[in-house]
Amino acid sequence: MTDIKTYINQNKDRFINELFDLLRIPSISADPSYKDAMIQTAEAVKSALEKAGCDSVEICETPGNPIVYGEKIIDDNLPTVLVYGHYDVQPADPVELWDSPAFEPVIKKTELHPDGAIFARGSSDDKGQMYMHVKALEYMTTEGELPCNVKFMIEGEEEVGSGSLEWFVKRNQEKLKNDIILISDTGMISNSQPSITTGLRGLSYVEVEITGPNRDLHSGLYGGAVANPINILTKMIASLHDENNHITIPGFYDKVLEASTEERKEMAKAPFSLDAYKKALDLEDVYGEKGYSTLERASIRPTLDVNGIWGGYIEEGAKTVIPSKAFAKISMRLVPNQNSDEITALFTKHFESIAPKAVKVKVTAHHGGEAYVTPIDNIGYRAANKAYTETFGVPAIPQRSGGSIPIVALFEQELKSKTILMGFGLDSDAIHSPNEHYGVFNYLKGIETIPLFFKYFTEMS
Amino acid sequence: MTDIKTYINQNKDRFINELFDLLRIPSISADPSYKDAMIQTAEAVKSALEKAGCDSVEICETPGNPIVYGEKIIDDNLPTVLVYGHYDVQPADPVELWDSPAFEPVIKKTELHPDGAIFARGSSDDKGQMYMHVKALEYMTTEGELPCNVKFMIEGEEEVGSGSLEWFVKRNQEKLKNDIILISDTGMISNSQPSITTGLRGLSYVEVEITGPNRDLHSGLYGGAVANPINILTKMIASLHDENNHITIPGFYDKVLEASTEERKEMAKAPFSLDAYKKALDLEDVYGEKGYSTLERASIRPTLDVNGIWGGYIEEGAKTVIPSKAFAKISMRLVPNQNSDEITALFTKHFESIAPKAVKVKVTAHHGGEAYVTPIDNIGYRAANKAYTETFGVPAIPQRSGGSIPIVALFEQELKSKTILMGFGLDSDAIHSPNEHYGVFNYLKGIETIPLFFKYFTEMS
Repeated sequence: MTDIKTYINQNKDRFINELFDLLRIPSISADPSYKDAMIQTAEAVKSALEKAGCDSVEICETPGNPIVYGEKIIDDNLPTVLVYGHYDVQPADPVELWDSPAFEPVIKKTELHPDGAIFARGSSDDKGQMYMHVKALEYMTTEGELPCNVKFMIEGEEEVGSGSLEWFVKRNQEKLKNDIILISDTGMISNSQPSITTGLRGLSYVEVEITGPNRDLHSGLYGGAVANPINILTKMIASLHDENNHITIPGFYDKVLEASTEERKEMAKAPFSLDAYKKALDLEDVYGEKGYSTLERASIRPTLDVNGIWGGYIEEGAKTVIPSKAFAKISMRLVPNQNSDEITALFTKHFESIAPKAVKVKVTAHHGGEAYVTPIDNIGYRAANKAYTETFGVPAIPQRSGGSIPIVALFEQELKSKTILMGFGLDSDAIHSPNEHYGVFNYLKGIETIPLFFKYFTEMS
Repeated sequence: MTDIKTYINQNKDRFINELFDLLRIPSISADPSYKDAMIQTAEAVKSALEKAGCDSVEICETPGNPIVYGEKIIDDNLPTVLVYGHYDVQPADPVELWDSPAFEPVIKKTELHPDGAIFARGSSDDKGQMYMHVKALEYMTTEGELPCNVKFMIEGEEEVGSGSLEWFVKRNQEKLKNDIILISDTGMISNSQPSITTGLRGLSYVEVEITGPNRDLHSGLYGGAVANPINILTKMIASLHDENNHITIPGFYDKVLEASTEERKEMAKAPFSLDAYKKALDLEDVYGEKGYSTLERASIRPTLDVNGIWGGYIEEGAKTVIPSKAFAKISMRLVPNQNSDEITALFTKHFESIAPKAVKVKVTAHHGGEAYVTPIDNIGYRAANKAYTETFGVPAIPQRSGGSIPIVALFEQELKSKTILMGFGLDSDAIHSPNEHYGVFNYLKGIETIPLFFKYFTEMS
């Protein structure tokens, strides 16, 4: 037996090169033209799981992109950890803002990563974090000790709402049976302060279309006399927040579980510098709901953000047109106990109601998902915390995140088990942005910490 | 001598084919990648003017696209008509909405054009209308009689603000000296009711850029805590109109020359059916400034329209991003006595002032131009009216148009002469839109009417 640190030292170049190979495949789930890359990535994940020691790995067909399922069952009396991850990535646009091509991974040093960080789309979200589990398994099945059963479920639609995952989970409840679900798809406070995500926001995502005249019009001949769908769209969107940045959709806050004064006090203890936050984003000021701090606005409060807007002439130069249509993609982050479908319905009803008669409105629902909170007295949480304490030298801090992993609520409902969000990313990883990267330190530290979780979870079970 | 009707009958197929050749060249001035097409079009116009009988034609270099100048001087003691037109066209986007390619002209019958209409970008605006003058000259120099001197000035930047025209006119005042300027770049009420445009709106066109965070952010991790530039942009644009659809920019209306009650009464006599208007555009209702009729809103009132808006993820699918930047192109139509530069400055100051500290704002001015009113007691107006009366059988109705031909105000200032807007288009021509077209009737009727204008103008001078 070799200890994990030595094993990592002996193999780290290979670990990085293998991840590079995975990052080179542009598995963009939002764009149907990358369908072949999705299949290729699923096959690469299957092969990696086999080499790492899984006894049986299969590429499971779904209505959408395939799900890679693998397992190594050593004893039915031992507990089972189900590792979830995703092999799909966000689109790379705007591509011109990448300093190096999104699908040509390179290691570059940064202020926060003096040992270097891997720059590529998916490096942190989630190929890099998912692959740590593959390499941790490799260690446990070769030089270390696998103390319990392990199952892997790696999907290819996380960035577009995990549509097929629900279908798959509902049909494979026996196969997926487990005692705890382990996911690395979140971040931690810093490389010297680990944290475990205990809360996630839900999501409701819609696309809206406003139609004015039946064709594009000359703004000189018609300007002022017909509803310009862009002007109307801006008016409608603007009205969705009041002067305190509260959302104005009737009923939107009705089911919100307000955080207690005590919980908000605990949250306020997390290390956070507003100046550093503003500086990192080059902001003169932050902006958000009145009565809440920046950390609260980004975690325990629901939001409404326009993620995309377009209409009319958007090329170089000037065109005096009143377009026939204008569009926006709008997402709402939800908090416990808001229901995604209910919020989508409230949005749709309200948005249709505020349109003037001079335009037509169409609202289309994209994906959604529910918010989630993990209890910190769960043995999964305690095992993870013990593992972090050992590898980082300090205990992890529990944290509520503003992001959404809708499948966590789904897992609890369908598989009746809790999820531990053992994330090793940093907020500065620029996930979903140009120049996404993942620290080499974080990648290797994840591989080091995961086997300890397996050990302590088995001991505590 | 052949009379004009006979000459048209003998030559109409050739007239149409020659125009088709001109329409096939994609002279899109807004897109720098069509630079070669601009030169090619200017050369085609030069060649056409030479063949039609101009004594000297030159392609005049400017800081931008060249201006084609031609003349036929028969007697210095006779009056001189300066014909202005433009050979550049609007972009064809959205190209997918064209029923036939924008630069492959075809004749198709429509409800309003039982004799067929020429479908192509530029067919009405302005290649088709400009080319009527070339063919009218051809008639006058061959089978008819040219009663006075004529000069042609055909430019290639009308659709992007005629930037080089001012430069050219200021440097060529002697060469361009004239007694009346004749332009066919507007419309008339219907094919049975000619009209002469006596008023034009001015224009102020700006592009705005809102910057929030210095990079695109994940809307889960940052949503609610930082200013989303799209949300802010919609709020800022929405605030530019109040609940009565008055524009809220301080000082915007200060210099507006209000139309008199009498003038508004006269305008209300023009044939207009609100039902037909709504039906043609498939609108449930019209929309505009309180206290004014649809015709007034589209002609004697200033406006503010968003001509283009974009930001964030606008491809297929969903991306949960808070973009770093959002953009809009905004144009304001102006009325007599508003000044374009002043309005641009008022807009800029106001728009910057309403931005929250959490974002940065940049306003860039595109082109502008002044509003204009033509007096109807001018001999140019009277000569045009007499020509229309003869070819259409009914007198023309004077009309204020909502469009802008900024150079008309420039001509008056620099060349000290009045402009007669003898337009043969229809509002339904879909200029600046997909499926732009120009009636064959209108094209030939223009060629028939123009020589009569020359005759009566010379007689009245």
